[in-house]
Amino acid sequence: MTREVVLAAVPQGMPRESDFEVREAAGAEPGDGELLVRNVFVSVDPYMRGRMTGVRTYVAPFAPGDVIDGGAVGQVVTSRADGFAEGDWVQTMLGWRDVGVVAAASANKLNPDVAPVSTALGVLGMPGLTAWVGLVDIARIEPGETVYVSGAAGAVGSAAVQIAKLKGCHAIGSAGSDEKVEWLRSLGVEAFNYKTAQLEKKIDVYFDNVGGDQLELALSKLDTYGRVVACGAISRYNDPAGPPGPRNMGFVVTKRLRIQGFIVTDHFARFGDFLAEVGPWVASGELQYRETIVDGLENAPKAFAGLFTGDNTGKMLVRVSLGACDSRAAEPPSVTG
Amino acid sequence: MTREVVLAAVPQGMPRESDFEVREAAGAEPGDGELLVRNVFVSVDPYMRGRMTGVRTYVAPFAPGDVIDGGAVGQVVTSRADGFAEGDWVQTMLGWRDVGVVAAASANKLNPDVAPVSTALGVLGMPGLTAWVGLVDIARIEPGETVYVSGAAGAVGSAAVQIAKLKGCHAIGSAGSDEKVEWLRSLGVEAFNYKTAQLEKKIDVYFDNVGGDQLELALSKLDTYGRVVACGAISRYNDPAGPPGPRNMGFVVTKRLRIQGFIVTDHFARFGDFLAEVGPWVASGELQYRETIVDGLENAPKAFAGLFTGDNTGKMLVRVSLGACDSRAAEPPSVTG
Repeated sequence: MTREVVLAAVPQGMPRESDFEVREAAGAEPGDGELLVRNVFVSVDPYMRGRMTGVRTYVAPFAPGDVIDGGAVGQVVTSRADGFAEGDWVQTMLGWRDVGVVAAASANKLNPDVAPVSTALGVLGMPGLTAWVGLVDIARIEPGETVYVSGAAGAVGSAAVQIAKLKGCHAIGSAGSDEKVEWLRSLGVEAFNYKTAQLEKKIDVYFDNVGGDQLELALSKLDTYGRVVACGAISRYNDPAGPPGPRNMGFVVTKRLRIQGFIVTDHFARFGDFLAEVGPWVASGELQYRETIVDGLENAPKAFAGLFTGDNTGKMLVRVSLGACDSRAAEPPSVTG
Repeated sequence: MTREVVLAAVPQGMPRESDFEVREAAGAEPGDGELLVRNVFVSVDPYMRGRMTGVRTYVAPFAPGDVIDGGAVGQVVTSRADGFAEGDWVQTMLGWRDVGVVAAASANKLNPDVAPVSTALGVLGMPGLTAWVGLVDIARIEPGETVYVSGAAGAVGSAAVQIAKLKGCHAIGSAGSDEKVEWLRSLGVEAFNYKTAQLEKKIDVYFDNVGGDQLELALSKLDTYGRVVACGAISRYNDPAGPPGPRNMGFVVTKRLRIQGFIVTDHFARFGDFLAEVGPWVASGELQYRETIVDGLENAPKAFAGLFTGDNTGKMLVRVSLGACDSRAAEPPSVTG
C-alpha cells in the first residue's frame, strides 16, 4: 500500500487543502528495468499551479483524480535494473506519493557524498538550472551590469541573485518580509521588502518571478537595451484574468527592451554546464541556499498553498519519510541556513 | 526668407493644428562644405509624436519654438561642397521648412533615375528599413512562418507584410478601413479590418505597430517560441498613461515568447543590405507602395495629426514645392498606387 495525493477539484483562485485528497492505493511491483522507490522529499513548485487550471499550457493539465506529479528524491527499495541497488538515492518525477515504481532510465542517481540529496530538487536541480539558464542564456548577463530579481528569497530567485553576483554583476533582490531581506543582505545582495519599498535604481536585467506590478515597475527602471527574463509570474497564477498588464509597454520600443520567456525543460541540455559552474560554488559555500521543510505527505497541499503566501524561504520541500540509509536526508545542513 | 513650422505648445492628447505655428525666418547662407536646399517633400512620421511630450526618450524632445526636424527630400539651390551641384536631389533631416542649410556630409544624394525621389522617405528609406530590420534581424523570420502585421496599410506595415510574403512567409495584415484592406488583398496579403474583425489564426511573428488591444490579442494567438517585433504603438502615443497593458503577459512564459523593441536608427549599418534586397523588388513592382501626399508646408501639422486617425495609406508626405528640375517629384507614380 502507498499513500498518494490527488487533485480533488480544480482550485478557484488560491489553492486550498480541500482541493486535494490523500488516498491509499495498492503498491505496484517493479517490472524488468524498473525501480520501486520510497520518496524522502517531494517538491512543491509554483509552476504546478499552472497545471491545475484545466487548460493545457506547456504541460498537460492535472485532471481531478490525478496524482500530483513532480520532482521527488527517494531511495530504491527494490531494483530490477542494472546499475541500481537497494538504498541508492535517486531523483525521479514520482510526485506526491510515498512509494512508486519508475523506469530506471528516467531515474537520476544521486551521490549523497557530493551534496545533500535534497539539493537535487533545489539549488542543484531544476530551480538552480532555471536561475542559471535565465541569466546566462536568456539575459546574457555581462559583468558590471545591474541585475534585479523579484522573488529573490525563493528557490529560483535566491540562486539567481547570487549567481548574478558571482558572475560580476551588481545584484538587487526583493522579497516579501524583513527576515527574507535580512538573509539576502547577509549574502551580500542589495535587498528590499517590496511591501514597504520599491526599486529605485536603473537596471540592465530584470529576472521576473512575480509579474504584475513588479514587471511594470521594472520596465520603468530598465536602461536602454535592458532585458526581462520572464521566468514566472507568481503574483498572477491564482488570478490570471485579474489585474491588467503593464501600462508602460511603450518602453519596450523606446528603450529597445527584450522580454523573453523560457521554460527550463527546454534547456536540460545545459545541465552539465550548469553543474560544472554552480556545483563548486555550492560546495565551497560561495553560493548559499535555504530550504523550508514541511513534514508529512499529507501536508503537501498546505506546503504548496504556502508558496503563494510567501511561507517559504528558499526551496519548499515536503519530507515524506526519513531516509533509511543516510541521516543527512533527515537533517539537511541547509535547513538552518 | 523661408517658412518653417515650429512647435507652439506640447500637444495634450491628439495633436491639433493649434499646437504648431508657421513662421517666417531669415534665410541662411551656406558656408564652406554646406548646401542650401529647397525642400520638395517633408516627412511626417508617428515617432515624432514621442518627441512632443517634453520628455526625453531615445531622441531629445522638441521644445516650444523648435522647428520640427525630420526627414526631407529636396534640391540643391546653392552648393559650397564638392560633389554636389545645383539641382541635385538630396535627402536630409531639414524637417518642416521650405529652405535650409545643411552640411553636405549629412546629405544623402539621390539618383532620380533609380527610383522616385520620394521613396527615400518611404519604402526605400527609414520606414522600409524599419520593416526589413524588424523581420530579418529582430524577428528572424523563416520561410513558412505566419507573420501578422498591424497597421499594415501604413508606411512601415505595408512594406513589412510584403517583405514577409516575398521571403516565403504567410503574411496577414490588419488595417482600419475596408479600402485599405482591399489594397492589401490586391497585393496577395491576407487582410482584415480590425474595427470589424479580429485575428483568428495562430501566428509565429507579430510585427506590432499599434500596441494596446492588438498586442494583447496577438499574445493570445502567438504559437510557442513566437516573437513580437515591438516597432511602434500608435494607438498609445496620444494617451501613454491611458489603457492598461496586456492582461495576458503570462503567455510570454508559458509560450516562451520573445518581445523585442528596436529603433531603426541603431540599424543604419544594415542600409546597404536592405537596399540590395528590397531595391530590386521595388524596381520590379514585386513590392508595391503607396503615398498619401498633402500639399503645402502649412498643412504639415494637419498631415501629422492625420497619422493618428488613419488618413494615410502608405507613406504620408507633405509636398512643400514642386521640383524645379524633375517633374517626377510633382507626380510620383506611386500616388495612384
